Amino acid sequence: MNRPQAIERMVEIIKRLPGVGPKMAERLSYHIMKIPQGEVDRLIESIQKARQTMKCCSVCYNLSESDPCPVCSDSSRDKNVICVVETPQDLIAVSKVKDYTGLYFVLGGALSPLDAVGPDDIRVAQLLKRLKSDKITEVILATDTDSKGETTAIYLAEIIKPFGIKVTRLGYGLPVGGDIEYADEVTISRAIAGRKEM
Amino acid sequence: MNRPQAIERMVEIIKRLPGVGPKMAERLSYHIMKIPQGEVDRLIESIQKARQTMKCCSVCYNLSESDPCPVCSDSSRDKNVICVVETPQDLIAVSKVKDYTGLYFVLGGALSPLDAVGPDDIRVAQLLKRLKSDKITEVILATDTDSKGETTAIYLAEIIKPFGIKVTRLGYGLPVGGDIEYADEVTISRAIAGRKEM
Repeated sequence: MNRPQAIERMVEIIKRLPGVGPKMAERLSYHIMKIPQGEVDRLIESIQKARQTMKCCSVCYNLSESDPCPVCSDSSRDKNVICVVETPQDLIAVSKVKDYTGLYFVLGGALSPLDAVGPDDIRVAQLLKRLKSDKITEVILATDTDSKGETTAIYLAEIIKPFGIKVTRLGYGLPVGGDIEYADEVTISRAIAGRKEM
Repeated sequence: MNRPQAIERMVEIIKRLPGVGPKMAERLSYHIMKIPQGEVDRLIESIQKARQTMKCCSVCYNLSESDPCPVCSDSSRDKNVICVVETPQDLIAVSKVKDYTGLYFVLGGALSPLDAVGPDDIRVAQLLKRLKSDKITEVILATDTDSKGETTAIYLAEIIKPFGIKVTRLGYGLPVGGDIEYADEVTISRAIAGRKEM
């Protein structure tokens, strides 16, 4: 006997989620079959509500309930400095460091020649457009410290420098090969203090 | 800045799924925010369809598209032998062994005094009812070989024996402390061949 078709399909779809293997997908599927309908409804509603209510900020491309997002709307922040991150999660991690008062820009990924992810697949054009329209004096590159993030930082530094804008990279303090999202606040704070021009 | 409320709620709900920690829940949530709407719809539809179409077989309590399930409806099977398993996944694992031709009974869990799971929380009463109404000559206890499964097997053996029914436990061959669902077919086949009376 094989798995019934409807469960097989659910397992196949859940298996495609990041970090979920075949056994984990099966476990999750049978768990979903077992729990009360109310719990299934809450799970589905939370997904649908997040998809419906969250907007992409038209200035920094952060996920937010409003457009522009609360950070871009905050008049007390330094509008001349932009911190460029890969994902909304990275933005949240950096924003927990109180000593950074500038704005942000979410690239939506990192360059990865091996995966055929080029400048057109992340928001390089949108970043350049913002650099042309806003009065930016410094761009802090806070992409991950793995090879994709480093590649992206080197690429961005090269195309931003001709604008006459100071380009810095988060400094020493970050563990090499890591993911910014998982770094602790003190490490991120030190990295901001020790940032260096590229 | 903290996570927006709608994403926070989705993370909180996904975090409750088995085997999913806080970081995994965050990763899955942001993945769901990023993928095309069609993929989100397919995920939700597969869950809803499985919940709507799958029935619980009124004879063996297996998950199935029909009631009774295809195994219980199969007239070629030996109706005098029942293999008792904890979950529908365990039933599928055992059913892959061709040399077992009897029927099944899904308990829906295992006894666990520490978690306050007693006989009323799994289908002990339904099993006894079936033993009274059907002509069963042997019950094979195929609960997991961990402490909960062993406890359940010992308990069931004690209450089934007074019916004058032969009670056997899957034999040596299964790795101790393991989960039947993950055992390979040869191991399960050997365990059936080497089953012993309790």
